[in-house]
Amino acid sequence: MTTTGAGRPRLKTRTRPGATARDEILDAAAELFTTRGFTGTSTRMIADAVGIRQASMYHHFATKDDILAALLLDTVTAPLACAEALERDCRDPVVRLYALTLFDAAQLAESRWNLGALYLLPEVTTDRFAEFRSLRIELMALYTEFALEAIAVIGDPDVGPEAASLPFRLVEATINARSDAAVDRSDAPAQAPAPDLVADSVLRVLGRSGPATEVRAVARAELDRLTGSCPQPRR
Amino acid sequence: MTTTGAGRPRLKTRTRPGATARDEILDAAAELFTTRGFTGTSTRMIADAVGIRQASMYHHFATKDDILAALLLDTVTAPLACAEALERDCRDPVVRLYALTLFDAAQLAESRWNLGALYLLPEVTTDRFAEFRSLRIELMALYTEFALEAIAVIGDPDVGPEAASLPFRLVEATINARSDAAVDRSDAPAQAPAPDLVADSVLRVLGRSGPATEVRAVARAELDRLTGSCPQPRR
Repeated sequence: MTTTGAGRPRLKTRTRPGATARDEILDAAAELFTTRGFTGTSTRMIADAVGIRQASMYHHFATKDDILAALLLDTVTAPLACAEALERDCRDPVVRLYALTLFDAAQLAESRWNLGALYLLPEVTTDRFAEFRSLRIELMALYTEFALEAIAVIGDPDVGPEAASLPFRLVEATINARSDAAVDRSDAPAQAPAPDLVADSVLRVLGRSGPATEVRAVARAELDRLTGSCPQPRR
Repeated sequence: MTTTGAGRPRLKTRTRPGATARDEILDAAAELFTTRGFTGTSTRMIADAVGIRQASMYHHFATKDDILAALLLDTVTAPLACAEALERDCRDPVVRLYALTLFDAAQLAESRWNLGALYLLPEVTTDRFAEFRSLRIELMALYTEFALEAIAVIGDPDVGPEAASLPFRLVEATINARSDAAVDRSDAPAQAPAPDLVADSVLRVLGRSGPATEVRAVARAELDRLTGSCPQPRR
């Protein structure tokens, strides 16, 4: 204990984004979890990557699970707040769904680490992550609700309510596309689809055809207007 | 060695599907990997789940990675053979893409274990799984090729070539929906979308509107005709 330089606040200068040590820990853990795997990452490796001692890290997070829980929560709280704001303030079902899709697809495409790739971890099925899972299900339910209303407004006789589950899936496909792009850079046709394309496709799947230009402009304006209630996602 | 009953061929009677011990090992490993995680599963646990000794298992697979590689290959070889047969024998781009989607979405939805949930494992980015990744990218490329041809035939002026990446993503969304359904059974709106719905949506995303009834019937007939060249996926 005394040989490792107790008293020094950190072992190296700050190199990670984040205003606080907590943010730096989250950033280092996000990198390690998404590149080396959750099981393959130790709390020691996270502390080393930040340049702090393990004891300092335990001041912020008692366990590795707590770090993962915080990271996963971060991926759903912003889109959920956005969905709730849109539910409250935006009356056009098509614009509302388009705006949510744009916001969520953009945060999944542009976040520094592809944390959605951790959603399928078996660890995430345990009680420790019940809060994350329940918020993600809330988000999924809002997508479905918005989609059902959009289907009703669009009125395509060939599109039934079962299509309402697809917008959420199209948005989360961004995660898989990013994973593929990260692995096989050279010859992969894979890259994350642009948020506009995802949002256009969401409306098509629900039976709307023709250009989405106007809906897109209104949805963007709506998102700008809601900036206060829609917190910007962590980058 | 001699105390564990050497000479007895297996420790319990066969309880898993599969004509051979190899198939039983794959089935047990698939269950454990998808429910307890790859890192959380030992070769000992797999042998125990089959009711054979570890030494017998090593006769079929030298390492846990070899078992995972075999399982992952199984998820892409059947749809890839189907795609190649359709490329060879089916001249209608819309029918071809619809048929591939139906086949692949059905195998992902109906396979005994949701092995696609392992695609995002960090382990799968290593050289050991290069063959699997390259076959999956081949499949992805065929989807993109089929989709580009379908976009050209459909001719919607609002759909550009960038939409060609989406059909593959819509099909793989089946994996995520199954994962969600398995975890939060009670209140989850999540379940795997029906293959027909996925295939209908693939055409919509590429700009085709109206009922897909006729395309679906032709695509099914095409798949029946190709049964010889399209091996049935492992259930």
